Amino acid sequence: MRRTSYEDPDCPVAQSLERVGERWTILILRDAYKGMTRFDQLEKSLKIAPNILTGRLASLVESGFLERKRYSERPPRDEYVLTERGRDFQEVVASLAAFGNRHFLTHDPSFVLFDTQTGKQADPMVIDAVSGQRVVNPRFQPRSTNQPVGSTDD
Amino acid sequence: MRRTSYEDPDCPVAQSLERVGERWTILILRDAYKGMTRFDQLEKSLKIAPNILTGRLASLVESGFLERKRYSERPPRDEYVLTERGRDFQEVVASLAAFGNRHFLTHDPSFVLFDTQTGKQADPMVIDAVSGQRVVNPRFQPRSTNQPVGSTDD
Repeated sequence: MRRTSYEDPDCPVAQSLERVGERWTILILRDAYKGMTRFDQLEKSLKIAPNILTGRLASLVESGFLERKRYSERPPRDEYVLTERGRDFQEVVASLAAFGNRHFLTHDPSFVLFDTQTGKQADPMVIDAVSGQRVVNPRFQPRSTNQPVGSTDD
Repeated sequence: MRRTSYEDPDCPVAQSLERVGERWTILILRDAYKGMTRFDQLEKSLKIAPNILTGRLASLVESGFLERKRYSERPPRDEYVLTERGRDFQEVVASLAAFGNRHFLTHDPSFVLFDTQTGKQADPMVIDAVSGQRVVNPRFQPRSTNQPVGSTDD
């Protein structure tokens, strides 16, 4: 039994996963942040079947993360460039990479952000912009916006 | 053709997705942050087949995000509580939720973080702890740690 949708229109986590939750999708975006734009670059990097890559790219174009642009007329060739939405998602990939580096990598990782102005390796972390505090802290608790403070989420 | 692994031991993004990339896994963790610990709570919230939920919970226990604890002997009943690693992953889910709220939600979302010390809704964003700057900024570029600055990632 495989459903096509998480059917949870009010949840921002489910709605994001609707667009990027399929296998390989986030790794395509990771490679886009590394500067890859062409089908053959992605195919070589990810080592996935071309029909799967074609489907994932079409899905990322449809959901507004990538834009398809023709870069050669003869022969006809397209490339896939990040949209504003796609670039914005780098926040999520940066936090996923930082988490992976903290928990699973014991040696030089193949994906870290560098600060090109200072040449230093960046240390991505998620903070609350209002208080300036890191969100991994018991003071931050999830609830829905239309739920009274103090009620349980059931 | 479905492979069991992304086979990319050096990439922190791939290594994280190895553990949380399966369908439903991140939504189970989302519900754990909301305080759900029991099988029937998760089954009701996610509306997934029990055998799928059993498999995903076992996988999250195996990869160290959840710990299985017995809370009743008669009848025997277990609950699933977040480990330190599981709590740390709230950073990633917070950034995914913030992204979803920016791009896909037009009304009251069902998952936002609140600051229990102030009662205010939090605004999670990903910054570089070294410079204090937001990582969605062209000055931050990905590369591997063992790659010279300025070379392309091919």
